[in-house]
Amino acid sequence: MSSNSTSANESRSSEIREAIFTMGQQARQAAYALATLSAEKKNAILRAMAASIRQHAPDILAANLLDVQAAEEKGLTMAMVDRLRLDAARIEAIAGGIDQVATLHDPCGEILSEVTRPNGMHIKQVRVPIGVIGIIYESRPNVTSDAAVLCLKSGNATILRGGSEAIHSNRAIAAALQSGGEPAGLPAHSIQLIPFTDRESVAVLANMDRYLDLIIPRGGKGLIETVVSLARMPVIKHYDGICHTYIDVDADPAVAIKVSVNAKAQKPSVCNALETLLVHRDIAASLLPDLARAFREKNVELRGCENTRAILPDVIAATEEDWHTEYLDYILSIKIVNSLGEAMTHINEYGSHHSDCIITTNAATAEIFLNGIDSACVFHNVSTRLADGEEFGFGAEIGISTDKLHARGPMALRELTSYQYRITGDGVVK
Amino acid sequence: MSSNSTSANESRSSEIREAIFTMGQQARQAAYALATLSAEKKNAILRAMAASIRQHAPDILAANLLDVQAAEEKGLTMAMVDRLRLDAARIEAIAGGIDQVATLHDPCGEILSEVTRPNGMHIKQVRVPIGVIGIIYESRPNVTSDAAVLCLKSGNATILRGGSEAIHSNRAIAAALQSGGEPAGLPAHSIQLIPFTDRESVAVLANMDRYLDLIIPRGGKGLIETVVSLARMPVIKHYDGICHTYIDVDADPAVAIKVSVNAKAQKPSVCNALETLLVHRDIAASLLPDLARAFREKNVELRGCENTRAILPDVIAATEEDWHTEYLDYILSIKIVNSLGEAMTHINEYGSHHSDCIITTNAATAEIFLNGIDSACVFHNVSTRLADGEEFGFGAEIGISTDKLHARGPMALRELTSYQYRITGDGVVK
Repeated sequence: MSSNSTSANESRSSEIREAIFTMGQQARQAAYALATLSAEKKNAILRAMAASIRQHAPDILAANLLDVQAAEEKGLTMAMVDRLRLDAARIEAIAGGIDQVATLHDPCGEILSEVTRPNGMHIKQVRVPIGVIGIIYESRPNVTSDAAVLCLKSGNATILRGGSEAIHSNRAIAAALQSGGEPAGLPAHSIQLIPFTDRESVAVLANMDRYLDLIIPRGGKGLIETVVSLARMPVIKHYDGICHTYIDVDADPAVAIKVSVNAKAQKPSVCNALETLLVHRDIAASLLPDLARAFREKNVELRGCENTRAILPDVIAATEEDWHTEYLDYILSIKIVNSLGEAMTHINEYGSHHSDCIITTNAATAEIFLNGIDSACVFHNVSTRLADGEEFGFGAEIGISTDKLHARGPMALRELTSYQYRITGDGVVK
Repeated sequence: MSSNSTSANESRSSEIREAIFTMGQQARQAAYALATLSAEKKNAILRAMAASIRQHAPDILAANLLDVQAAEEKGLTMAMVDRLRLDAARIEAIAGGIDQVATLHDPCGEILSEVTRPNGMHIKQVRVPIGVIGIIYESRPNVTSDAAVLCLKSGNATILRGGSEAIHSNRAIAAALQSGGEPAGLPAHSIQLIPFTDRESVAVLANMDRYLDLIIPRGGKGLIETVVSLARMPVIKHYDGICHTYIDVDADPAVAIKVSVNAKAQKPSVCNALETLLVHRDIAASLLPDLARAFREKNVELRGCENTRAILPDVIAATEEDWHTEYLDYILSIKIVNSLGEAMTHINEYGSHHSDCIITTNAATAEIFLNGIDSACVFHNVSTRLADGEEFGFGAEIGISTDKLHARGPMALRELTSYQYRITGDGVVK
């Protein structure tokens, strides 16, 4: 590399660092202002932002066209281009999503616990915003709005870093949110989009624990891995879902078929879809033929262990790799187990601790399973596809956390808050 | 370096990695077993462990003597040797602490929320253990027991990595806990002490996110910084406390003096002690002479801003450095501020977001302060020395978290748990 280009790189690096550092300082100030806004004020800001998205739809579509054209020129896959593309319906969905967040309960200010101690001091544990949240995401431009408005509703400032493929769309959406929100009282710098798509900007953000209280990577394993290895502040990960359904010896066959087929085939491309079916050996011979027929009607390819293939000879042989695989596709692996204990050991060992289910009519068996599976969501006679913030009644979710600290499972407004102890008294000392 | 010593180093490294990896696998299995123990069972184990500490007091004291002798030979300071030293009273305090943890409420199994959704599925959010917790700590050998028993009571397995100075004491205490607990039903490998004091063992532990769900560094800034920069799993930090008290224009002078002197002088060496006093300009001239007299009676050295020195000419001039300093000593910095807003900005900017206090009789002013200070504990007319798990009624604490995620402020049994959603139904699908 010539010394000229080295110096150009250094100057670029220093530009990125300084710009992101300034955004961090500004976000911190915005967070202090946001923490004092009433729910009514935040809702009015959100409605103004939704209106602004609708009003700026032509600008957003024009910006999106630049991203789509660039993606097509770069030869991205159809699926990737589709994730990137906006149209009138998708823009209305973004705006409608903001209006919906305005109707949700504001968790800030909730009293989580309250006690008066013998020395007379009164302690209130109050829900408060986290502060400044960094969101690092990949191609879908709707994340720019979805993430920012959930953070705003819960009183947090956001610094967004989207992928390079959607940079024009992201800028247009962020600009519409800001220009709509600020006249309604949105504090300046509450929602900031990093204008750089250089990889270095991720590293700078992940290192800035002075200003960033939390970082949430939304995207593939590679992105999450990069953030986990770089971040100095807490990270909430939304890793993959290797979800299981275990059909117990005491299962109702109709429920077993209905729930497991739904879990696999209703939408296979998502993290709460079924990947591995475990079947108790004493129900396998009677159940598997009907089960296989039901899966094949939905075009699901089956891969099985040796014992499964003894019952279903036309099933492909599963390898060790299959038990570790999140197919996200019309593929299912099937394993016959000798006991509840073997099923539980398999799930805790091979699963991703996301969502796992038991089908049984035996309440005692179900209880052992629910107590012993180390996953965010454990189901009894309910499809794992129901592991979802909206299904849980949370109104909207920022993702499904596969972490155990702070947020586990569907993560919504409440999980975007912290708490603070407020202690009052009349001159109490130690 | 000769190739022989290189190869010896590599072999040592690989020995450490393999041993810690095995401990991780074993701890994970222990955690599954621990999660199913009843509160009664865990309490019986704890009482057996306390009895075992008392019974093995001679072994623990003999081991401690080796550490103390080594520390004296190495020329450690008197204070460091004292932190290391155990005697009959300190061993009884360790055992008594375990007995006390046995009397505390077990948070596991608590229902945090419960709802039946329109589709008929019933969702219970249940408190569960986190799993495997790594504790990295420095010289005090009592941490071996304190940390392990709080983790055990909350259903977690622990991997402990103590400092080299206390290695013999730590081994003896861990051995007494295990040998006492196992006959009472403690699952094997629930409490493991890393036998290596090599620095590399910290790096190996911090990298092992496959088996470790959380890591808690207990010690100085250097240790915390090392763990933060290496850890792939969540870290809960107990950083320093640069605590403030702001004396408002509407303060009761007697309360102002009583509370601020207590906050500074009752025990200056701890993280919730007062470091910087902010005084409203309109009360400064009348209050500061009496306040200075009260502090000096407690041998507190005063450092002040220019305006403070105009009122108290014999006070040392404070520098910018002082506002950033956690003295942990009989030293106090004093700054006169023009307004509540200036006090709040100073605290949010220079403080460590640990514990901060306002002294005022004006409820509206107090409300603004409590809402606007971004600290784990905010006090009104109460000494910051009350920021403490025992004072809050938690029974025991593992530390005071300066993080905002998962645990903030005094961190006790409840903060050593996670939660899990348990969803039941009768064939509910999406």
